[in-house]
Amino acid sequence: MELFSLPVSSYSAKVRIALELKGIDYQASPPPGGYSTPEYMQYVPLGTIPAIQIEDQYISESDVIMEYLEDKFPQNSLLGSDPHKRALHRFLARYHDIWLEPHLRRTFAHCDPATRVQSELDDHLDKFEQRLQKLEELFEPTPFMVDETIGYADCAFPATIVLAEILFPLFGREVVLGPKVSRWYEATMANPVVKKITDESRQATLEWMNSGGG
Amino acid sequence: MELFSLPVSSYSAKVRIALELKGIDYQASPPPGGYSTPEYMQYVPLGTIPAIQIEDQYISESDVIMEYLEDKFPQNSLLGSDPHKRALHRFLARYHDIWLEPHLRRTFAHCDPATRVQSELDDHLDKFEQRLQKLEELFEPTPFMVDETIGYADCAFPATIVLAEILFPLFGREVVLGPKVSRWYEATMANPVVKKITDESRQATLEWMNSGGG
Repeated sequence: MELFSLPVSSYSAKVRIALELKGIDYQASPPPGGYSTPEYMQYVPLGTIPAIQIEDQYISESDVIMEYLEDKFPQNSLLGSDPHKRALHRFLARYHDIWLEPHLRRTFAHCDPATRVQSELDDHLDKFEQRLQKLEELFEPTPFMVDETIGYADCAFPATIVLAEILFPLFGREVVLGPKVSRWYEATMANPVVKKITDESRQATLEWMNSGGG
Repeated sequence: MELFSLPVSSYSAKVRIALELKGIDYQASPPPGGYSTPEYMQYVPLGTIPAIQIEDQYISESDVIMEYLEDKFPQNSLLGSDPHKRALHRFLARYHDIWLEPHLRRTFAHCDPATRVQSELDDHLDKFEQRLQKLEELFEPTPFMVDETIGYADCAFPATIVLAEILFPLFGREVVLGPKVSRWYEATMANPVVKKITDESRQATLEWMNSGGG
């Protein structure tokens, strides 16, 4: 399997964590021609990363890839078999993708103080903070989000929190994790796969920023 | 099973279509106290509709509910068993939720000409149109989106297109469906479940608008 991804992409990190937790062989490479280019969009119509190529098929959108991996490679299941727990995994993953992460992504446009719109930036930082706090109401750490072993929901948040820990100080703020999220984060970052991939993600992001974020 | 929903909500329509295609008994009612109220948020922490209550558990987010229904009630499967087709169903459903529908929803704020910001409205209408056109590249009608029988991906789009057909003329524009989407739409709207639920959805939306959209 080929994974089209970039080390700075937190959605790519999520899929890489899932692939490695499941023990699936894959080859990671940048999208041919770059993301959103006509060349890449011949294969991946939305032009986004991550995407996978398998058996001449291309699949994009991180949660669609994750569900496909669960269907195609039942080993080391990340969703488990209990319908309620499966629903909680998916709910938390969707909360990450739709409610939480977009506010962090929108701060990128304000990294350069010369073009920053402070009120818009503050609004995104506030929303991200509120939604990280709201996460305290959405799960009980066991210590993972849904179960006693690491699973589907746990793949989405690590790279986003690592990125927030880089970005918030740039804007003079600090990421504050509530007690439940802290307990979950400590357990999850101790997983060797999560640690390796988020370390790569952190380093790539810092290099990208030091090079001017171009 | 209890479904908390409102007839004007297109995401509620999507879940109702799935419930009825699968032949699952349910009771639909408005969210207790109203959506986003403290009363309702005791049960559904994000305060959103649709949500279901089953066995004292509450599940929200339409696609999370749809996946739960597939897990819990395997009858009349909407995803089928082929991993690639399952991925295409999920990809199209996610395309609807994240890429297409949000632009239509954002036009609501501009319904009243007195407070309309024409440039923002035009931007959302243009994006919605472009992404509806892009849908032509994402599937081949068979006549349904993925298979010869109606399925998961087909549940998301009908109520959104019905709503667009109400809203676009209000803004002096017309919804144009490409040839593939037209062929799919005709086949899908001929399904009695889809027809019944989108008829209710259309009527509720027109009544809501005639009452001032309050």
